[in-house]
Amino acid sequence: MNIYEDLCLLIGKEKTSVNETVLVNHSKDESNHQSVEPDVVVFPESTEDVQKILKYANTHKVPVVPYGAGSGLEGQSIPVQKGISVDFEKMNKILEVRPEDLAVIVQPGITRVQLNEELKKYGLFFPVDPGADASIGGMAATNASGTMTVRYGGMRSQVLNLRVVLADGRVIETGSLAKKSSSGLHLNGLFVGSEGTLGIFTEIALKLHGIPEDIVAARCSFPSVSSCVEAATAILAAGVPVARIELVDARTIQQTNEYSGTDYPAAPSLFFEFHGNRGGNQEDIEFVQAIVEEAGCLEFLSETNSLKRAALWKARHEVNFAYRHGNPRLDSITTDVCVPISKLAENVEFASRKLNEYGLKGGVVGHVGDGNFHSMILYDPNVKGEYEKVLQLTDEMVELALQSGGTCTGEHGVGLGKIGYQRKEHKEALDVMLSLKRTLDPNNIMNPGKIFPGEG
Amino acid sequence: MNIYEDLCLLIGKEKTSVNETVLVNHSKDESNHQSVEPDVVVFPESTEDVQKILKYANTHKVPVVPYGAGSGLEGQSIPVQKGISVDFEKMNKILEVRPEDLAVIVQPGITRVQLNEELKKYGLFFPVDPGADASIGGMAATNASGTMTVRYGGMRSQVLNLRVVLADGRVIETGSLAKKSSSGLHLNGLFVGSEGTLGIFTEIALKLHGIPEDIVAARCSFPSVSSCVEAATAILAAGVPVARIELVDARTIQQTNEYSGTDYPAAPSLFFEFHGNRGGNQEDIEFVQAIVEEAGCLEFLSETNSLKRAALWKARHEVNFAYRHGNPRLDSITTDVCVPISKLAENVEFASRKLNEYGLKGGVVGHVGDGNFHSMILYDPNVKGEYEKVLQLTDEMVELALQSGGTCTGEHGVGLGKIGYQRKEHKEALDVMLSLKRTLDPNNIMNPGKIFPGEG
Ligand SMILES: Cc1cc2nc3c(=O)[nH]c(=O)nc-3n(C[C@H](O)[C@H](O)[C@H](O)COP(=O)(O)OP(=O)(O)OC[C@H]3O[C@@H](n4cnc5c(N)ncnc54)[C@H](O)[C@@H]3O)c2cc1C
Ligand SMILES: Cc1cc2nc3c(=O)[nH]c(=O)nc-3n(C[C@H](O)[C@H](O)[C@H](O)COP(=O)(O)OP(=O)(O)OC[C@H]3O[C@@H](n4cnc5c(N)ncnc54)[C@H](O)[C@@H]3O)c2cc1C
Repeated sequence: MNIYEDLCLLIGKEKTSVNETVLVNHSKDESNHQSVEPDVVVFPESTEDVQKILKYANTHKVPVVPYGAGSGLEGQSIPVQKGISVDFEKMNKILEVRPEDLAVIVQPGITRVQLNEELKKYGLFFPVDPGADASIGGMAATNASGTMTVRYGGMRSQVLNLRVVLADGRVIETGSLAKKSSSGLHLNGLFVGSEGTLGIFTEIALKLHGIPEDIVAARCSFPSVSSCVEAATAILAAGVPVARIELVDARTIQQTNEYSGTDYPAAPSLFFEFHGNRGGNQEDIEFVQAIVEEAGCLEFLSETNSLKRAALWKARHEVNFAYRHGNPRLDSITTDVCVPISKLAENVEFASRKLNEYGLKGGVVGHVGDGNFHSMILYDPNVKGEYEKVLQLTDEMVELALQSGGTCTGEHGVGLGKIGYQRKEHKEALDVMLSLKRTLDPNNIMNPGKIFPGEG
Repeated sequence: MNIYEDLCLLIGKEKTSVNETVLVNHSKDESNHQSVEPDVVVFPESTEDVQKILKYANTHKVPVVPYGAGSGLEGQSIPVQKGISVDFEKMNKILEVRPEDLAVIVQPGITRVQLNEELKKYGLFFPVDPGADASIGGMAATNASGTMTVRYGGMRSQVLNLRVVLADGRVIETGSLAKKSSSGLHLNGLFVGSEGTLGIFTEIALKLHGIPEDIVAARCSFPSVSSCVEAATAILAAGVPVARIELVDARTIQQTNEYSGTDYPAAPSLFFEFHGNRGGNQEDIEFVQAIVEEAGCLEFLSETNSLKRAALWKARHEVNFAYRHGNPRLDSITTDVCVPISKLAENVEFASRKLNEYGLKGGVVGHVGDGNFHSMILYDPNVKGEYEKVLQLTDEMVELALQSGGTCTGEHGVGLGKIGYQRKEHKEALDVMLSLKRTLDPNNIMNPGKIFPGEG
């Protein structure tokens, strides 16, 4: 059997590659997991192409790994058992904008920035904004979320429908264009976040939102991380519909100032955004200002100027790059626990304290409105034992998050990195997940080695 | 085998009943489907009780049907194959209110009104509000929604975690207390809406929301249903975060005036509610007023007085009872299609026109923000052929909804009433649903005869 030649015949030579550079590009993502080259990379142009690929792979028991933008942080798109990497770069079109329905139908390869660029013309936007310019297919497959999730929800709540090719080549639609449904079993929710282990998405219908009339950003700094969290909790409990509420610790502010040329006070900070009309935003901001002052805020600044607002969020989104850029010889790892808000301060403080205790460089940023935070941990791969320290630290952080009633991953997904926590987090429910996986992919060809421990 | 005696031994005589009145009470719900008495009714007091019941039932292949408040409109809780009806009236406690986490953990038997009564003390509320005082377990099992779903989402987006007893007695947790997660496969979404066919919920963790500082209701009437829908569409597209936007047609307004003693103009109307701060609501209302006037609104009235506001929503919630009360000799059926908003006017007009053509009494109300509407159709069970006309009409309505890219049921669920549309709506995806059902309930003891056509 020659997979390359077979696929050339099946879908065409121009959509099939074993070029060494192409193989290397598809051997890794943005994580530090060991890279593995696929046997072949394919670039399908239609659902039919994907059906042919999967029928072939299923018959010959060849692993298949969908590939979006490769921005994953847990090794999800690494073909650990080799096989076929399915890249959606040619399936990156907007198929239909439906402004009246506040909906859009896209191919999986389009990225969130490309999509929003087009939606602007309609006064609409898609609110899920991971730090990288990920593909919509990859975002659906990892249940990605971002800074606006506190207000608009993550991928799972934005996906109306998926066209999915199953392991055996069958094509299904998991939802409809109706905004809600109580018909059948809810397959949307099951396939979103399945990381290519249940099927491949070839079309995605998403909810959209009207660009708000008035947008205001704000920033305030605090004497401690815990006072940030306290303020955030009070704001949420009061029902203020903040569109963004992000925690950035002092070390990260410093790193950002160096990288992005900002001059924010190097203290634990909250970054806010308010979406609404002018009167409503004004009242919300006054109210929030009163709350943060009560919590000991050192400085509160609001920003209506759209350029300065964009600069603020650009700086926030580039935190990851700021650390990497500022420490070119170091590798980095990003944690992703998510806990009930009442446990957030304790978890964030634990992370900060442990970073110090272990003598590791790094900092904390968090989608505090969701109880989700990332610790960026830097380490020198050439210093013996340093990587082990990082693993021990992340392990302790996940342990505390699970004890707190939380999850090992709020948005990055399981991939290879969180596979070891699946049993501990899900207990008997993991057996149910495994039985569903086996039902839908009996030959275990769909992204094998991900999510499910002990499935080879 | 004597199921009654076996269950008395297993969980206790005081939790087991074959009293004729009890059997009759558990033979029906609020639909017109043929009633069937269960063999036994049980009233479990714990997850362990439910485990014992299911292990027994699974071993002896006895059907098990969970029973909430019996307010279902599609026959979901009717034990069509007899067996055991599991009533949650004794499991109706709030286990933990977590104000800081904006979350609550409840037993399934508590009703939404009981829950909100308690939450008031914390300045919090639970926003899913079906017209009946349903149980939270039943609401999760049907993926119920209501008038506030346009703003806050339906059950599926509000459930953080379910404790589920599976057919074989295993207990799993489908989520966690974290507000979001990308860990494992998303079982929450799969079990919500499964109508007792996959497992029984014994504990439910829900998201809560802060009671908004300022609430304003409004009401306006229009010359036609289509101008109502046009106005609603424009409001949503402009990104106004309305908390409620309900369509009530002229016939329904008349019926409501008679039943609830209101004096609303007998014209197609929109009922609104705005949740926010005072300044924001004021601007939203002015903006909405401008939009509805453009769409030809005849009269626009806003209402800040909380008693009058409550009266408005009470009238809206009692529409169903208004029709039944006003027509005591007639039976009624409520349709539940949900379509993309761009197709809503066409679908609503079709329903109204056909009601006239068939010479049937009834009217239309709709959660227009979600594209979901109900046609209340009255008929005389003693007039030959009238029920058949109703069935033909509902059939035509579902047909048009599916052609429009919608669903046969936006919120009431499948039960017995929508089983005939599952293949047409879900096509090949129905096979996937069936395979998941068989994986989790191989003996088909969990509410057999519901959702899945051809599963006996
Ligand atoms: C600097 C930086 C910041 C980040 N910030 C965030 C953040 O804030 N929030 C967040 O959620 N993530 C974040 N991420 C992680 C990453 O961007 C997300 O996981 C993203 O969803 C991955 O999308 P992708 O297109 O890059 O997918 P890939 O990495 O290529 O693949 C991810 C998974 O999706 C699967 N997949 C891809 N396409 C399909 C398809 N068509 N059908 C089925 N499965 C498919 C793959 O097989 C793989 O399992 C960040 C990453 C970086 C580098
Ligand atoms: C006047 C009126 C207005 C209505 N308006 C709405 C509306 O606006 N929106 C809406 O969504 N619905 C509406 N409904 C329908 C009904 O209220 C909902 O379907 C509700 O969710 C049913 O809840 P229940 O507790 O009555 O459940 P039941 O009718 O007793 O059961 C419904 C289903 O849930 C299952 N179930 C119950 N408890 C459990 C459990 N613990 N574990 C697993 N499965 C369980 C049952 O087996 C059954 O399949 C209305 C009904 C009436 C009579």
